[in-house]
Amino acid sequence: MTAGGGIRKVAGAARDAYLALLGCTEDDKNAALRGMIAALGRRRGEILAANARDCAAADELVAAGRMTAALRARLVFDDAKLAGVLAGIEQVIRLPDPANRVLWTIELDEGLVLRRVSCALGVIGVVFESRPDVVVQVSSLLLKAGNAGILKGGKEAQATNAALMAALREGLAASPAVPPDALQLLSTREEVQELLACDAEVDLLIPRGGKELVRQIKSSTRIPVLGHADGICHVYVHKDADLGKALRVVVDAKTNYPAVCNAAETILFDREGSARLLPPVVRALIDKGVEVRGCPETRKLVPEAAAAAEDAWSTEYLDLIASVRVVADMAAAVAHINRYGSHHTDAIVTEDEAAGVHFCRYIDSAGVFVNASTRFADGFRYGLGAEIGISTNKIHARGPVGLEGIVTYKYELRGAGHAVGDYGPGKRSYTHRTR
Amino acid sequence: MTAGGGIRKVAGAARDAYLALLGCTEDDKNAALRGMIAALGRRRGEILAANARDCAAADELVAAGRMTAALRARLVFDDAKLAGVLAGIEQVIRLPDPANRVLWTIELDEGLVLRRVSCALGVIGVVFESRPDVVVQVSSLLLKAGNAGILKGGKEAQATNAALMAALREGLAASPAVPPDALQLLSTREEVQELLACDAEVDLLIPRGGKELVRQIKSSTRIPVLGHADGICHVYVHKDADLGKALRVVVDAKTNYPAVCNAAETILFDREGSARLLPPVVRALIDKGVEVRGCPETRKLVPEAAAAAEDAWSTEYLDLIASVRVVADMAAAVAHINRYGSHHTDAIVTEDEAAGVHFCRYIDSAGVFVNASTRFADGFRYGLGAEIGISTNKIHARGPVGLEGIVTYKYELRGAGHAVGDYGPGKRSYTHRTR
Repeated sequence: MTAGGGIRKVAGAARDAYLALLGCTEDDKNAALRGMIAALGRRRGEILAANARDCAAADELVAAGRMTAALRARLVFDDAKLAGVLAGIEQVIRLPDPANRVLWTIELDEGLVLRRVSCALGVIGVVFESRPDVVVQVSSLLLKAGNAGILKGGKEAQATNAALMAALREGLAASPAVPPDALQLLSTREEVQELLACDAEVDLLIPRGGKELVRQIKSSTRIPVLGHADGICHVYVHKDADLGKALRVVVDAKTNYPAVCNAAETILFDREGSARLLPPVVRALIDKGVEVRGCPETRKLVPEAAAAAEDAWSTEYLDLIASVRVVADMAAAVAHINRYGSHHTDAIVTEDEAAGVHFCRYIDSAGVFVNASTRFADGFRYGLGAEIGISTNKIHARGPVGLEGIVTYKYELRGAGHAVGDYGPGKRSYTHRTR
Repeated sequence: MTAGGGIRKVAGAARDAYLALLGCTEDDKNAALRGMIAALGRRRGEILAANARDCAAADELVAAGRMTAALRARLVFDDAKLAGVLAGIEQVIRLPDPANRVLWTIELDEGLVLRRVSCALGVIGVVFESRPDVVVQVSSLLLKAGNAGILKGGKEAQATNAALMAALREGLAASPAVPPDALQLLSTREEVQELLACDAEVDLLIPRGGKELVRQIKSSTRIPVLGHADGICHVYVHKDADLGKALRVVVDAKTNYPAVCNAAETILFDREGSARLLPPVVRALIDKGVEVRGCPETRKLVPEAAAAAEDAWSTEYLDLIASVRVVADMAAAVAHINRYGSHHTDAIVTEDEAAGVHFCRYIDSAGVFVNASTRFADGFRYGLGAEIGISTNKIHARGPVGLEGIVTYKYELRGAGHAVGDYGPGKRSYTHRTR
């Protein structure tokens, strides 16, 4: 948006916009969201033309062997994508406003009432790769919660992103209470680097993309980061597993969409029962085109499996490849997952209720599943209405993060001239009545 | 505890202890807390003797002019302090277990139920200054939530802290399910520096102490930090304030305990009404021994006030000194507070309900008070049961932080072999029934 040290100005403008947004009602914000829908419609021609330019540039890169066909495919923004983002905004309009909700009320004393009230979080920077529809999706979520957003997309989609953001900002004007600088777009990597230093202005960073992007951002900023670097998810086939369920869960977790973070990378089997369970499950994977890399015990049971490399247990393949290991028992499975996993989502297949409870208790991950595929770890599937990202953080929001992950709260205390000096031994005491 | 690179071992032992604690019931944890009470009683003699050594060493430093009398006074751990910490543990035993609570349940489909369940956060490092009773208070809170703690106190209290921690660890043994390494104590600044690098083992750092301590920790770690550096709290006397309430709130906020973070540093007055409100309020402060440093308009109304320095609005005095400024109106007051404040706690005094609502909406602070002293910003006064610290963070916990600020949650999904591939257009759809 601005060159050189100008990014602090961008961040400052975002901060002012956030402070102005604090006064917005849900109607004000929804009016801006409807304005965004209208403006995207009005500017359809420009947006599709911008995307055609991005795609043409990408074609040259693909021809020169400097871009993969998969990345090129994700760049497309056509009428179907436009319809998708418009439906997405409609959905965000229907979601309840996460701000200005009274979360808790307690009377501290007569006439002195404390309320914990949700409110927007502040200025949020979102850095993502390739797919231009993320511009619209993220913008609508940030705005609904009352946050100001500073976005940066992939440079392959630069023209499309700029055209989309121009439409979104034009749309905001439909709601006079919403400042246009509530949404801003950066265009270069250098600008992102400058943004990472704006810890006085930016409250939260959300990197959405490959693990290198996430790691690089986490290691170069003091701003809190919400996200996940890896998705090394496990399915543990317990000795008391039902074979049918094991087949369904393992095959889905590995093959339904291997390129995403909630796909399984490692399948563990108890030694006891492995003769019954491992060969059919592993062969089902092989039949689905999965390259299985197993420990020695796995290869004894399924000789056609390849040998697992030393780093197999900590490798995120994001492909039709699976690591398979036989473990001594539940304790060994839990230890393996807590050691090598990325605390994202891990599943057990078992008919033993107690084993499921034990697994959920001891696995230190955002998602702990019993007899269900790790692929369910997703904001839409969880019924959160929308997803701003997936977090493997321990603090703030964990797992798939919906609107409530991009708000915070404040304490509102209302009294009638109350003073702390009036309380204490021999004086007034607190009532602490919750309502 | 261990010298050299041994701190990563300490952190690793804490991590193992946390993972073992995941299996503890509330009874297990309460048994350990009762064990701590018993052990502190058994080891009373050693603890008081250790404190006598710390106090004797401190006396020499005071005599040599290398320690303040105030710091020396805070070192004391006598029978009254012991009774205090024992009562504190009793209180923590009575608090409900914040872990293993079902926070939200949703049916995703028939037989596929998602629950958001609270759980311990992990390994928490707490670095604090001087008062040895913090060792006991923090340890009991961390343990009740199921966290492992690595503590570091002030070096002046080193012998007392070590004696207290030895008793606490001995007490843990009363509950066989609780591993003794759930609580560990560091003794040198170098060890803290090493701990700051253990971002794979430590989930959260809580610095409790002066702003230099907090800033230094925040700037030298990638581990999330929960705390507050400054407490520049404001009282804004609105033009429609009741004089009696203004007097009570301002005098309490400034003079009840000036050395703490929730004491007010700056008092703002609307220009309109300042002739009625400012002189009596400022003179009441002066009568209480407060040195008032005012803007030119303040000094016109109260000539005995000193002149405010250039940096007055961003200075935390922690003393009987107050900055006083006349502002144009509500918008100017809000802008002043959001610019110079530390987002801790700010109050308005007004009889105008709408003005109070406006202030609470637009002030970007953890506490926004109407007609009540900023000194109420405290976990005990808020009825949180106990306080682990006060946070000016925007993410995770904000304001005074009780037990619920040191837990997180995980998503537990239970199915019967459910696979994502069965859902989509023309296939199954999600029910998303909340219960």
